[in-house]
Amino acid sequence: MKDILYETCEKWDVFELAFTGKTSGNPFTDYTIQAVFTHKCGRTAVDGFYDGDGVYKVRFMPSFTGIYHYEVKGTFSDREYTGTFAAEEPSASNHGPVRVAGQHHFAYEDGTPFYPIGTTCYVWELQSDALIEETFKSLKQSAFNKIRFCIFPKHYVYNFGEPRSYPYEGTPMDSSVLTEENFQQFSMHPQGNHFDFTRFNPAHFRHIETCIKRLGEMGIEADIIVMHPYDRWGFSHMTQEQDDLYWKYVIARFAAFRNVWWAFANEYDLLSDKTVSDWERYAKIVCKKDPYNHLRSIHNCMQMYDHTRPWITHCSIQRQDIYKTAELTNEWRIRFGKPVVLDEIAYEGNIQHGWGNISGEEMVRRFWEGALRGGYPGHGETYLSEDNILWWSHGGTLKGESWKRFGFLLDVLKETPGYGLKLSDSCGWDEVCAVPDITTEAFAPVKSYYLYYYSFMRPSWREFYFDDNTRFQVYVLDTWNMTKEDAGIHCGKFRISLPGRPYMAIQLRKAD
Amino acid sequence: MKDILYETCEKWDVFELAFTGKTSGNPFTDYTIQAVFTHKCGRTAVDGFYDGDGVYKVRFMPSFTGIYHYEVKGTFSDREYTGTFAAEEPSASNHGPVRVAGQHHFAYEDGTPFYPIGTTCYVWELQSDALIEETFKSLKQSAFNKIRFCIFPKHYVYNFGEPRSYPYEGTPMDSSVLTEENFQQFSMHPQGNHFDFTRFNPAHFRHIETCIKRLGEMGIEADIIVMHPYDRWGFSHMTQEQDDLYWKYVIARFAAFRNVWWAFANEYDLLSDKTVSDWERYAKIVCKKDPYNHLRSIHNCMQMYDHTRPWITHCSIQRQDIYKTAELTNEWRIRFGKPVVLDEIAYEGNIQHGWGNISGEEMVRRFWEGALRGGYPGHGETYLSEDNILWWSHGGTLKGESWKRFGFLLDVLKETPGYGLKLSDSCGWDEVCAVPDITTEAFAPVKSYYLYYYSFMRPSWREFYFDDNTRFQVYVLDTWNMTKEDAGIHCGKFRISLPGRPYMAIQLRKAD
Repeated sequence: MKDILYETCEKWDVFELAFTGKTSGNPFTDYTIQAVFTHKCGRTAVDGFYDGDGVYKVRFMPSFTGIYHYEVKGTFSDREYTGTFAAEEPSASNHGPVRVAGQHHFAYEDGTPFYPIGTTCYVWELQSDALIEETFKSLKQSAFNKIRFCIFPKHYVYNFGEPRSYPYEGTPMDSSVLTEENFQQFSMHPQGNHFDFTRFNPAHFRHIETCIKRLGEMGIEADIIVMHPYDRWGFSHMTQEQDDLYWKYVIARFAAFRNVWWAFANEYDLLSDKTVSDWERYAKIVCKKDPYNHLRSIHNCMQMYDHTRPWITHCSIQRQDIYKTAELTNEWRIRFGKPVVLDEIAYEGNIQHGWGNISGEEMVRRFWEGALRGGYPGHGETYLSEDNILWWSHGGTLKGESWKRFGFLLDVLKETPGYGLKLSDSCGWDEVCAVPDITTEAFAPVKSYYLYYYSFMRPSWREFYFDDNTRFQVYVLDTWNMTKEDAGIHCGKFRISLPGRPYMAIQLRKAD
Repeated sequence: MKDILYETCEKWDVFELAFTGKTSGNPFTDYTIQAVFTHKCGRTAVDGFYDGDGVYKVRFMPSFTGIYHYEVKGTFSDREYTGTFAAEEPSASNHGPVRVAGQHHFAYEDGTPFYPIGTTCYVWELQSDALIEETFKSLKQSAFNKIRFCIFPKHYVYNFGEPRSYPYEGTPMDSSVLTEENFQQFSMHPQGNHFDFTRFNPAHFRHIETCIKRLGEMGIEADIIVMHPYDRWGFSHMTQEQDDLYWKYVIARFAAFRNVWWAFANEYDLLSDKTVSDWERYAKIVCKKDPYNHLRSIHNCMQMYDHTRPWITHCSIQRQDIYKTAELTNEWRIRFGKPVVLDEIAYEGNIQHGWGNISGEEMVRRFWEGALRGGYPGHGETYLSEDNILWWSHGGTLKGESWKRFGFLLDVLKETPGYGLKLSDSCGWDEVCAVPDITTEAFAPVKSYYLYYYSFMRPSWREFYFDDNTRFQVYVLDTWNMTKEDAGIHCGKFRISLPGRPYMAIQLRKAD
């Protein structure tokens, strides 16, 4: 238990205070705790939260270096607390939270471009310690820099097991009655559960926080799915009051972690009890209570949310068509005027469902199609497994082929002048031609950089002509075999040979 | 030279009469020759044509067995001719011309279903004798039962050579001046040619007729492209009068061949001189002059023709999207209410252009996608070749992988009860489920036949439930490896295992 200790904290790290407080009644609902952090550049109010065992906590993420003064008040205690801490320069790997950069891309708060290479593991963090370690190991080997996962446990095919813990005090239904035939009726009408939706289980959240923190240390953004329909415990059928209590608790606990993104829902339109006014109410809470303005999105199943709503920072879009989704990125960029993240363009795997059985080649193709249009597709894996551990929900070991190839894409994206790509206006019909999204002398002068992608097509050569004078350094990229070959410097009208295989790309950089 | 000989002719074969006639002036325009064939079931008037060297011919395809009387008149001769012939029962391989069957499919006139498996070889018949023989050999090894080709020679990339003959008297421009840079200006503004568009070259047409006839003997429909824009000789820039003369000559010569289809154009919208009223005028000519009502279609590049026009018997549609075309078949069936033939869904190959470099796998996938939706995709091959012989234009040897796999598809299509397939109303989003298009007790009772296709998806199993009683014989088909495995008889709710590979299909037939 700390009290008015002068401390230091790295800018964008979590500064945490803990206090003992009242325990009578229900501390989650009966008492308040609030703090105000004051810096010469501004004043920030944050809610604290009850962490169980008589302990109340306040978390804060400093946005500036220098001295912060704070005051902590509330009904949780009969006294008030004040103190001071110094926010220091961030360490080399700490770039701050991710923000929207320009109109359609992302960058860390320190200006470093961020190109999301996301994966989905819905409840990886609610598995056993051993499996969680395996997931961390897999993530470390991969190029993933964003992972989408839920706070609530998941109930669905391949997901009948119990989570390691529940978010509320109470006991769950007997899962031994579940079958492939009856499981969906428990989503609609949960029964046999005894949870108190006014009393959180702090251990559940503490555990998730250790996972968020470790992800952050690995440079991975935690795209936290706050609500979702794949439920048998009643978490998707709470009252407005209970929902709001939950949102505030989540924000108070998680918002100070710089790598948090708020994914309001997975498949919001399948939450049968919730209306647009509910989602808008949650949005108001988040906009009010999250002082750091973490990224906010809401993901659909069938019907997209209106991503033009001002509280939505970027689109989170599910596959819209069995054949085309990443290919529609440009249309959505224009329609919504925001970054387009494609969280679910089908998963690499071999399960029975069409959303979970595309090949590694098709997954990587979708990534390139989306990325060159200035969007950010996401990965997932659903390979049948004897132990029933599928990456998409449980994490564990990556079994597919696509994940190995995203580092190559990321390396290429990092070569983009500016913050990201967009379709070139002069893109031909049988190619994807990307140029830097921001063309200024500072970022990327016009005609300085081109990236062409040929998808499943297999040209043996392509011809280029930009002008008579500009010299281009040309590279031929095999996006599947991850090779990059120097094709020389060219000028005027020139041909570049290709191997007549699918998944080839050509990169051109102004040579002078 | 024949005169009133009593002859026999097989029903749907060509009955031909030849007469000597006037040669002064221009026999192609100055004289007429018409015949009327009378049978107890009806009376048919046909135009004859001048075949050069003082010979005029009349061709007729009898639609009935039994005695026909004919009268031949015209200004070509000072005398008139009459005669009689007997149309006999067709031989086993002669099923008559192909007609639309039901609303969306095809059958020969004798009722035998016809499932088009088409290929495109624009000017295969205008190549050397040796190459033509090679093409016939390739066709014989294949399952193709329709071939699209032009009467006029073709001028385009990979097509700068001279044809074996020209359709008109005269001399062509010097093709040695052609380059990849300048070739298109000769299409727009032909120059240096000296053709008389009122004097045909009968040898050109006679040669094409021998090809049509040989195709017919092989059971292959000749989808004859009457006009096209890939021209440097002026054939796409003739006057209305010259065009009409050409259409009438073509009909008089070719219409009596039962395997002829009239493909009004390849890419009608690229013929810069022609307007819709021109195409409608040609249509009037064909409807008036072709007494056999051969199938009529008009093929587009960018903009589809209005396929609801009454003279159009079936849609001939080019790829509309780089990713999806065959997948749109069902929408076009509904929109146009006619059979949907997809003449060009990109070609298998490796040339520089996106329309000519898809893989064999992708081509076969497009065929299955289209076929199960009740449409008929077409093939073509554009593999680079040292001798510059690309199947798509010149025929020759098939070099790809897709053509080997259409026989397997055709065999499956032939098992369809009735005339063809359509999408099932109960088709899931992640499958293509086809059922017989005509469900009557006679053709195909409801729930008697299902064909599922999984495209690039790779399910390890799929679950089925139709009702509690119907027993189904189930087969698992690998459409790429061309295997068909008996998966047993099933009833009620059942699972069928699949290998988790792409391009799998499942066929179910009522077992009782």
